[in-house]
Amino acid sequence: MGFAPLAPGSTIGILGGGQLGRMLALAAARLGFDTVVLTPEPNACATRVATRSIVAAYDDAGALEALSQTASVVTFEFENVPARVVEQLRALDVAVAPGARALAVAQDRVDEKTFLNACGAATVDFVAVETVADIVAGLERLGAPALLKTRREGYDGKGQAWVKTVAEAEAAFAAIGGKPAILEAKASFRRELSVIAARGWGGESAAYPLGENHHRDGVLRRTIAPAPDVSPAALAQAQLFARHILEELDYVGVMGIELFELEDGRLLVNEIAPRVHNSGHWTLDGCEVDQFEQHIRAVAGWPLGPVEPLAAVQMENLLGEEIDAWREIAAEPRARLWDYGKGEARPGRKMGHVNRLRPLG
Amino acid sequence: MGFAPLAPGSTIGILGGGQLGRMLALAAARLGFDTVVLTPEPNACATRVATRSIVAAYDDAGALEALSQTASVVTFEFENVPARVVEQLRALDVAVAPGARALAVAQDRVDEKTFLNACGAATVDFVAVETVADIVAGLERLGAPALLKTRREGYDGKGQAWVKTVAEAEAAFAAIGGKPAILEAKASFRRELSVIAARGWGGESAAYPLGENHHRDGVLRRTIAPAPDVSPAALAQAQLFARHILEELDYVGVMGIELFELEDGRLLVNEIAPRVHNSGHWTLDGCEVDQFEQHIRAVAGWPLGPVEPLAAVQMENLLGEEIDAWREIAAEPRARLWDYGKGEARPGRKMGHVNRLRPLG
Repeated sequence: MGFAPLAPGSTIGILGGGQLGRMLALAAARLGFDTVVLTPEPNACATRVATRSIVAAYDDAGALEALSQTASVVTFEFENVPARVVEQLRALDVAVAPGARALAVAQDRVDEKTFLNACGAATVDFVAVETVADIVAGLERLGAPALLKTRREGYDGKGQAWVKTVAEAEAAFAAIGGKPAILEAKASFRRELSVIAARGWGGESAAYPLGENHHRDGVLRRTIAPAPDVSPAALAQAQLFARHILEELDYVGVMGIELFELEDGRLLVNEIAPRVHNSGHWTLDGCEVDQFEQHIRAVAGWPLGPVEPLAAVQMENLLGEEIDAWREIAAEPRARLWDYGKGEARPGRKMGHVNRLRPLG
Repeated sequence: MGFAPLAPGSTIGILGGGQLGRMLALAAARLGFDTVVLTPEPNACATRVATRSIVAAYDDAGALEALSQTASVVTFEFENVPARVVEQLRALDVAVAPGARALAVAQDRVDEKTFLNACGAATVDFVAVETVADIVAGLERLGAPALLKTRREGYDGKGQAWVKTVAEAEAAFAAIGGKPAILEAKASFRRELSVIAARGWGGESAAYPLGENHHRDGVLRRTIAPAPDVSPAALAQAQLFARHILEELDYVGVMGIELFELEDGRLLVNEIAPRVHNSGHWTLDGCEVDQFEQHIRAVAGWPLGPVEPLAAVQMENLLGEEIDAWREIAAEPRARLWDYGKGEARPGRKMGHVNRLRPLG
């Protein structure tokens, strides 16, 4: 699909007002773009740096009309944008990137894994779950324990429950609200990696070096990038997965692809996020063109930027009152602080992050 | 003077809505600050990324009142802020950095050179000019040709005239509007350098490596940084000048200091700019902490960041329709484009710049 590169001065629309939207808006500003953020939340942190903002529900017809009148292309900072919003925007004749298919696939865990397997990206075994009986049958097929997740929504470990025995099936189903679900085989993995990849309107693509991710209570705490001890085979496999996934979705923009590295070195895809990704924040200070500028370049029809690392980075999320360490972090010589300008440091809330840099190699 | 570091979420006021204000606002956003820009120009490019903007004259009492109510500290992006504005802000009990003295000194070329010489920073010889007779006497003392400049205002080569003979004195004085002026001896210099230095509220200071500046028609076209072939003695002299100037002014923030390197290797100070400086744009992609973040850190009472170069940079200004090269520049692998988001590419207008990077050494 062709797309004439947007001239500086054009406006980029962003659905979502969180820190990802904020950093997208800052990256867009560097390149001379105006931004308009649509978010239901007044004073959302992205609106504080955007040129304009529209405070309304994502599917508010008037808001989408206003967005389509100012923006030359609309993108989003989160994957749960209702599919009908993309349809509404397309009906208003405004470009949307990434497209509806990427959203649809990423919004349903069964569709996602089915899609991934179909395009050659391995995943854990899984079964679709509608009833408690499906869980019981699934445990038989996948072995116990297995991980039950709602098909839709849920992030940062929410909407999940481990099922260790058939006896627990009913309680686990209740715990996730009795909603349509997926039961996943337990992956015996060595570590979690991720690859941040980008694809432009013309089909060109590029992937940053892999990151190694560390979670606590289902929330990303730390990314080490470039990930140490990645075999050439694993790197090639990750890049191949990324290329196939992006191609198959005719994707435009940056995507975060979470991977499991198995004990035997093989990679499985855990999930895909059709947006800039927390595990790519290291690129903000570790690469010339970071994932936010890369996303803006992609959706604006600009050439993709270089993806080579300039430093070894340890990215650490600052959750809740961990942000109070800004004084100390500001004084560390090779620590690069990002504060998202959010008001209230609620427990667990992503308030900022710090990239600690070391020379490469 | 003590100053408790401003917490993220605080608001920084910026007088001036141009590209320097825009890049200050973007740097402030990274650290979690809100910004409020005061500018008389609607839709000025800094307002498009600032959290809030106030469109009014700089000395509008209501505007300054509003600014003082939201901003914890006020800074500026240009040196011709009327001194009474700083007085008004101080009367409203808001911190202003840099202070009134730096502005006063930088606004009057005779006061500036008198100040520089008093604090040990050499300059060209000069005489103050009130009448044509002063020019004639000055030519005798300084030799011909000499450069006549208005004492106040004028930038990028405006308000200047060379006087080659006594016979030209009257015409030259008329050409600069017959205003109070300075007559400067011609400096026989090898090249122009500049040093971007910063000082915090606690007196700590830091200076980036020197840049080598190339002008055309009085306008900066290119900076090469770190400047090649700078002798240790010249570097030490530049750093000493910077430290003395900042100390003597009890300065807080980033200052641009333009230098002449004479044929014999000695340095003279050409002029000082009490603000972030065009010749420091290379730091945006050549250093971990660029001059804009450094300025925000300084005025917010944060520790100064590192000033070591990470790359060799050639910064080139994009004037007027040179900005149309954005397509080609975006495709260059190690070229980092900044577009200021200004609408109309009037001839000579600073529309953006590009930093081209090479490995150091």
